[in-house]
Amino acid sequence: MSSNWQNLAKTKVDSVLNLIPKEWRIEKVPSVEEQPDVTGKYIHQFLSHQEIEITESDAVSIVAHTSSGKWKSVDVAKAFCHRAALAHQLVNCLHEIFFDQAIQSAEALDKYYAQHKAPIGPLHGLPVSLKDQFHVKDVETHMGYIGWIGTFQGQKGTGRERKFESEMVRELRNLGAVLYVKTSVPHTLMMGETVNNIIGYTQNPKNRHLSAGGSSGGEGALIGLRGSPVGFGTDIGGSIRIPSAFNGLFGIRPSTGRLPYQGMANTIEGQNTVLSVVGPLATTPDALKLVMQSLLSTKPWFYDPLVHEIPWRAQEENIFSHPLSFAVVRHDGRVAPTPPVARAIEKVVKMLEKRGHTVIEWKPTPSQDEINAICFKAFMFDGGNDCRDALDLADEPMAKCCLIPPRGPQATAMDINAVNVEKREAQKAYMDYWNSTAALTGTGRPVDAIISPLAPFPAARPDGYTYYGYSTWVNMLDYTSVIVPVTHADKHVDKKDANFKAVDEADQQTQNTYDPELYDGARVSVQLTGRRLQEEKMLALAKYVGENLHGRAHAL
Amino acid sequence: MSSNWQNLAKTKVDSVLNLIPKEWRIEKVPSVEEQPDVTGKYIHQFLSHQEIEITESDAVSIVAHTSSGKWKSVDVAKAFCHRAALAHQLVNCLHEIFFDQAIQSAEALDKYYAQHKAPIGPLHGLPVSLKDQFHVKDVETHMGYIGWIGTFQGQKGTGRERKFESEMVRELRNLGAVLYVKTSVPHTLMMGETVNNIIGYTQNPKNRHLSAGGSSGGEGALIGLRGSPVGFGTDIGGSIRIPSAFNGLFGIRPSTGRLPYQGMANTIEGQNTVLSVVGPLATTPDALKLVMQSLLSTKPWFYDPLVHEIPWRAQEENIFSHPLSFAVVRHDGRVAPTPPVARAIEKVVKMLEKRGHTVIEWKPTPSQDEINAICFKAFMFDGGNDCRDALDLADEPMAKCCLIPPRGPQATAMDINAVNVEKREAQKAYMDYWNSTAALTGTGRPVDAIISPLAPFPAARPDGYTYYGYSTWVNMLDYTSVIVPVTHADKHVDKKDANFKAVDEADQQTQNTYDPELYDGARVSVQLTGRRLQEEKMLALAKYVGENLHGRAHAL
Repeated sequence: MSSNWQNLAKTKVDSVLNLIPKEWRIEKVPSVEEQPDVTGKYIHQFLSHQEIEITESDAVSIVAHTSSGKWKSVDVAKAFCHRAALAHQLVNCLHEIFFDQAIQSAEALDKYYAQHKAPIGPLHGLPVSLKDQFHVKDVETHMGYIGWIGTFQGQKGTGRERKFESEMVRELRNLGAVLYVKTSVPHTLMMGETVNNIIGYTQNPKNRHLSAGGSSGGEGALIGLRGSPVGFGTDIGGSIRIPSAFNGLFGIRPSTGRLPYQGMANTIEGQNTVLSVVGPLATTPDALKLVMQSLLSTKPWFYDPLVHEIPWRAQEENIFSHPLSFAVVRHDGRVAPTPPVARAIEKVVKMLEKRGHTVIEWKPTPSQDEINAICFKAFMFDGGNDCRDALDLADEPMAKCCLIPPRGPQATAMDINAVNVEKREAQKAYMDYWNSTAALTGTGRPVDAIISPLAPFPAARPDGYTYYGYSTWVNMLDYTSVIVPVTHADKHVDKKDANFKAVDEADQQTQNTYDPELYDGARVSVQLTGRRLQEEKMLALAKYVGENLHGRAHAL
Repeated sequence: MSSNWQNLAKTKVDSVLNLIPKEWRIEKVPSVEEQPDVTGKYIHQFLSHQEIEITESDAVSIVAHTSSGKWKSVDVAKAFCHRAALAHQLVNCLHEIFFDQAIQSAEALDKYYAQHKAPIGPLHGLPVSLKDQFHVKDVETHMGYIGWIGTFQGQKGTGRERKFESEMVRELRNLGAVLYVKTSVPHTLMMGETVNNIIGYTQNPKNRHLSAGGSSGGEGALIGLRGSPVGFGTDIGGSIRIPSAFNGLFGIRPSTGRLPYQGMANTIEGQNTVLSVVGPLATTPDALKLVMQSLLSTKPWFYDPLVHEIPWRAQEENIFSHPLSFAVVRHDGRVAPTPPVARAIEKVVKMLEKRGHTVIEWKPTPSQDEINAICFKAFMFDGGNDCRDALDLADEPMAKCCLIPPRGPQATAMDINAVNVEKREAQKAYMDYWNSTAALTGTGRPVDAIISPLAPFPAARPDGYTYYGYSTWVNMLDYTSVIVPVTHADKHVDKKDANFKAVDEADQQTQNTYDPELYDGARVSVQLTGRRLQEEKMLALAKYVGENLHGRAHAL
């Protein structure tokens, strides 16, 4: 049987590679050692000047060009298809390629524009990449499971195979987006790295020794290499934010019920204590706003029963109607951030203080640790059975860095109810703590956002994503969280801390993963967390922080 | 042991009765046979002209008087305390009385008004009754369980006993409301009637042979007798709507996440597939709007982690910005409504058609029956254990009409996940059906609301609430639903249907419960159901229907 899954995987991988036109193939992909960094100049050698101009524009700029007739949608589509094809060959970031479909859509958009002298919608001609949980007509969804190849979510003969589309796909098409690739995920989705038995490991384009993050790792790698201007991932424990942070991108984990998850494939479906959410990653915060605002203009609450009727609220972007204040988490009491991440935090804090904003220490009750413990209970309710069942369809082994335990006992209804109550009470206590900061900020209001690491490292080393505590608290609390790229690791500045005193063995091991040579040049980001359903405000804050750090809010 | 619970119950009941001032006691409460209807003239004999004027004003009018200094809050409070005391003696509708606290609050409000010449908030001096799930300082919460007497939700020594307050209680106080009673509930809350081993059975004031409904039955009976202008109940399967309908009141079951449930006692806490919601019952739709709008003005989303950040949206009340259309459910395929209910439905349909609105037949996929089946699975996840545990604290027996089964096996995590997926898919299919009615309405838009019975009967006979299918579909779909009082049963008009053909035995039995003599004069209502989170629109529609039926939108 084991050779069988390997053959199935190889056939699948080859079928996707064969969809790359010959002229876009890289004759000899360099080894990781030869060429760790495949961004910028390295990938430029394969691209025309026009292709570089297009693919290094952000989504807002692309739409401005396609909507005014300055760029043809088909040229934009071809440029991104080309760059995505290169990206896949360099870092293993795609599960599915459907360039023909994309070019057809783009041609139809150009035709529409020629007839109407107006765009079809606010995303006219914008290429949008999708994590391999979205179902797209004529395209497979395997989500990293070999047993899902040729099926609909593991089931054969459903009539939905390669026919059914996720709700958001319908909306994106109506808005004028061009869909062209589905990006890689780790099987089970429960990992901060991206690896499966089909495509192998998705590497970080800035440094292929490192991980692109997970579980929306293909998105992170692809956008990090500018093979996509904006894409959608999902996040149940950090899966949008980790690849955003590892690749120097902006990304948002919206609260549940803001964007439509309807009709997407998922892991442990029906676990509704801590829900996975869908959200965008992009090169600018304006791009995130563009796609969110556009999607909300389609009134997804009439098409997804779990979306709340909350249109885009432009007035919430007006963050300067009040003085701002922030809180900072420098250490969550469990695992210290490594030196480049600690420096990024200080950089943001200093910038904000310099601009007159108060920054207080964040010392919540319950602690981050207690919040995280509740989140992990929810992940384990089904005793790992759903994920093991999916792997067992093809008798394939589970990746080493997966969070899912060996098959264990399931929680009962009363166990689950107790955790749900514990969760709600912890959410309430944490909310009360947040409200109580009004007494400390000097603004007369509670803090506007919490600055924290997203992970202890700029990017994980393979099989090295061992601590999730800086991301999972956000999921448990259902807060709105954005990633802001801050700096690059610098071996001359970010030295190992000779006096580091570990809290425990796990803390020490995490710190040990930091190697100034290896990490030199890696992108380093921070997380800004707001209250629940504050997507407009948090994107405005991400932009403000980005602009004040770099002059313009753009990916590294 | 059994004599023990009876003693505990008697002690509790007496302690509450003893809180009624002697001058408010009814010397000899007439038997049900002597005086089935205790509303109107009957109860007026115990009240002064001013007390009648105050207690028969709706909440909006009361606040207009207290906020302009025309009425003193203390007079309003005393009038309602008096009438509530009478109501309790007549129909067993109260669990807790705290008149002294109420009069103190009212005096403080009068003092505030005298000083500031302005109300303290939008509910200045408004008496508000609360279902016995709300925790109020210095007052017990027993929720009908003998084992909860002297405890905090069944636990001793928590430090919260008679100290802790539910979040909405804090908000109501800040808005200027006067709290004075907690109303009766059936133990377990899982019944369409109100009965427990402490206070016994809560009767319908219009006809004490009938039920006041449940589980917010004390609210229904109290407001039905005008012992409260507005009160809050909860609804997981009909528990706000049933007492509203049985007592000729307006009531709203908001969608989950609109009003704060934080810090309330509950049954099967932590079951989060079908959530209980909190919402008001009142004598007018304007009163429902007043309290909802006021609560939302306190931004409950900063104090309850499950409330969505959706302020009151006045523009959604503008229901005539589009032409309106409706759908009607005359029979859900399982149990036929009895003649007065069927007539009420036709009365509403004819009125709407006469005013030019389209009314189509509602033939959803999945069927109402399939939707209800999913809801009941969720109610049974814990195998009835939570409710049995609460009853077993005092070894008391369960009421006959309770929905909770004998102790059975619990669902596992994977069972629950499967139901959650089934639920979400059914919600989506139902939503698609709703959208599809745009092709049938002639307005170019899907129907605005669904007209249906809320129960097969105007009010259940004791132990006769056997069919929940007209209310539970709304909970499963998380829709916004309002009750509109329509008419009174009339033995000369609402005759038994001699040609009735039952679908099955249950259908026949329900029809058999209808007796034109017994039901003569009973209040009859219909349910109007809107989509999720459409509270503003549904209250506007309830007002429109009420006004067009009766000239003014007021309880019967």
